[in-house]
Amino acid sequence: MADFRLMQELAIESSSKIVLLVLDGLGGIPLSPGGPTELEAAQRPNMNRLAAQGTLGQTLPVGHGITPGSGPGHLGLFGYDPLQYDIGRGVLEAFGIGVEVGPDDVAARGNFCTVDERGEIIDRRAGRIATEAARPLVEKLAAISLAGVELEVKPVKEYRFVVVMRGQNLSAALSETDPQRTGAPPLPVRPLDPAADRTARLFNQWLESARQRLARDHPANMVTLRGFSGDPRLPKFESIYKMRPACLAVYPMYRGVARLVGMTTIDVRGDKPEDEFRALAAVWADFDFFFVHIKPTDSRGEDGDFNAKVKVIESVDSALPILLDLKPDVLVITGDHSTPAKMRTHSWHPVPLLLWAPETIRPDDEQVFGERACAHGGLGTIRAADLMPIALAHGGRLTKYGA
Amino acid sequence: MADFRLMQELAIESSSKIVLLVLDGLGGIPLSPGGPTELEAAQRPNMNRLAAQGTLGQTLPVGHGITPGSGPGHLGLFGYDPLQYDIGRGVLEAFGIGVEVGPDDVAARGNFCTVDERGEIIDRRAGRIATEAARPLVEKLAAISLAGVELEVKPVKEYRFVVVMRGQNLSAALSETDPQRTGAPPLPVRPLDPAADRTARLFNQWLESARQRLARDHPANMVTLRGFSGDPRLPKFESIYKMRPACLAVYPMYRGVARLVGMTTIDVRGDKPEDEFRALAAVWADFDFFFVHIKPTDSRGEDGDFNAKVKVIESVDSALPILLDLKPDVLVITGDHSTPAKMRTHSWHPVPLLLWAPETIRPDDEQVFGERACAHGGLGTIRAADLMPIALAHGGRLTKYGA
Repeated sequence: MADFRLMQELAIESSSKIVLLVLDGLGGIPLSPGGPTELEAAQRPNMNRLAAQGTLGQTLPVGHGITPGSGPGHLGLFGYDPLQYDIGRGVLEAFGIGVEVGPDDVAARGNFCTVDERGEIIDRRAGRIATEAARPLVEKLAAISLAGVELEVKPVKEYRFVVVMRGQNLSAALSETDPQRTGAPPLPVRPLDPAADRTARLFNQWLESARQRLARDHPANMVTLRGFSGDPRLPKFESIYKMRPACLAVYPMYRGVARLVGMTTIDVRGDKPEDEFRALAAVWADFDFFFVHIKPTDSRGEDGDFNAKVKVIESVDSALPILLDLKPDVLVITGDHSTPAKMRTHSWHPVPLLLWAPETIRPDDEQVFGERACAHGGLGTIRAADLMPIALAHGGRLTKYGA
Repeated sequence: MADFRLMQELAIESSSKIVLLVLDGLGGIPLSPGGPTELEAAQRPNMNRLAAQGTLGQTLPVGHGITPGSGPGHLGLFGYDPLQYDIGRGVLEAFGIGVEVGPDDVAARGNFCTVDERGEIIDRRAGRIATEAARPLVEKLAAISLAGVELEVKPVKEYRFVVVMRGQNLSAALSETDPQRTGAPPLPVRPLDPAADRTARLFNQWLESARQRLARDHPANMVTLRGFSGDPRLPKFESIYKMRPACLAVYPMYRGVARLVGMTTIDVRGDKPEDEFRALAAVWADFDFFFVHIKPTDSRGEDGDFNAKVKVIESVDSALPILLDLKPDVLVITGDHSTPAKMRTHSWHPVPLLLWAPETIRPDDEQVFGERACAHGGLGTIRAADLMPIALAHGGRLTKYGA
């Protein structure tokens, strides 16, 4: 918060353009000792040229040793300390499938589960039923109506779904219903704050109705709700940085996170890097800051497919000239976290960072964009949330502190 | 403040001598891609030898992306977090021209402006009148007297001047009179705190008197006052670090800042680096800590004269043997911020840092003193305010924390 006061005090308007290109899960590790990481293995002539002209470093999305989810990973890149600002899990799950969560809504993650005749849970994930099997059950849940509120229920994957409740004076200060073990019944929703009394009653009514409607649907004969959350009411990007921000992203979750900080989401035709860069070019005059999100680096990392992740990086590199032809004043290339293919999951490793700004850059000794080079780049190892002030400074968008 | 409690707890007396050599605005950037910075371009055999024997790093004066003014830049080097400690703009402006601001004084920055017949401002800078044209007008203002206080008014440059009010029970908690736009009259001074009622009245009387005396002096027929400030009552250097500090500086502003933290300012005959080093040698026995300030690196950077800035660095390097002959236990060479000649202004880039301490140094791999080498020096990238504890430690002046 103190940082935002400083940013709000120092940020000034400018005609400069800043691009933040996020390759989701960019950072990697070698498959075998001495080998290259995914980024180091990629043919990346454009990125290497930018690295030679620019300066490198590495970002810590949350802190040393901390593996971030997608929400914290992106909040950090936007300058919001992820330990201070929190997007609830219900909201993130809703964003992930393109469900809106407005300022007055409460979202929750739902799990189908199996209960016995006494109502005690015997399988917390209902035998991990298939996505297709869950679909008609979600339709049953979507048919539940409650007086005074609107409800939206959507499937996510396998046994997981999302519920969003919309109405007046709702509160997400609610306890979860998953007892986190078998042999116990689902817990009732309890208000964690008197203002949440009515919302708790409504969700308990909904749960009772769900129980009745699913009673014959073994193994998915009951549900639990977790991660109740609403709009985190984040300070808005434009009011902090005095830039009009645009989001170029294909996946709903990232568009949702961008909207939470007040970015305008731009529709992208197609899902290739060049499609995103062309969509960016089409709105170049209308915004000052462009967040471009590339998803498949993370997806191929989670698949454990090292070579496919390399290919994604190469496809971004090949498309980069479309972006560079726009002559951005500042270009940042980084990730929201690492997703080493060897690990098949998000990791805590620092994230490669490339900063390029032709007019104001102080180059370092590094000549290529890769994890080893970034580890001794001129920017050092910084918190992801410190990146925005650096980008603004290079865009001539921060005035002097003190006389 | 927490930091100072730790320093006060751990600092011990010693006979060691620590020298902090500040080349104002030292950091630079290349004029063209791949070229050297000003420091890298300089012939600097002495600095390079010290770099090879010592260890390098870079400092962040305030924080990532933040361009500091001279006040915050120096407070950071002295160990005072510039976001926590603040020297007011009126005080700094007064220091810049050698006007004292004592513990009971209030200083303000003044601007001549042009008002129309209704008293509304039509030019906030009175056509940027020349310094010479402003001088007789400042003399008119200096002739104003008010009961119970002393007043000092001095020209700064062009349309700018300084007023210092001296007396009992004055307060700087005052609103500014510049409406920050034309078409509005100057604002009255308002107290921001009941303790400032009398000071506000006095400044308003002074402004009314200024208005009358300047009425015929178009275009400089009125003034505005900004940056009311008094002694920031900083914790004193000696009480924090248990060292007797001396300041060797030619320019008034830096002598003023040094006095605010309790340093003794030493007179320097001449304005060359060797003059400052000789003045230092003359008082070597009387102090433990020596802040040596070299101004022209910053001035030539602000002129945009890359080669002249290189020459200043070379002149410091040539004079260094005078300093080294004194056999300091710890020598730090750095800047208060960067002033790249290419940018002609202060910048946010990290500042090169060289630490040399023959008895306790842990050397790194770096062999020369320059921005690229500093980017991977052994000290890493640190907040400027973290430098003092490192210097004290190398001087054997900090005891162990905990058993």
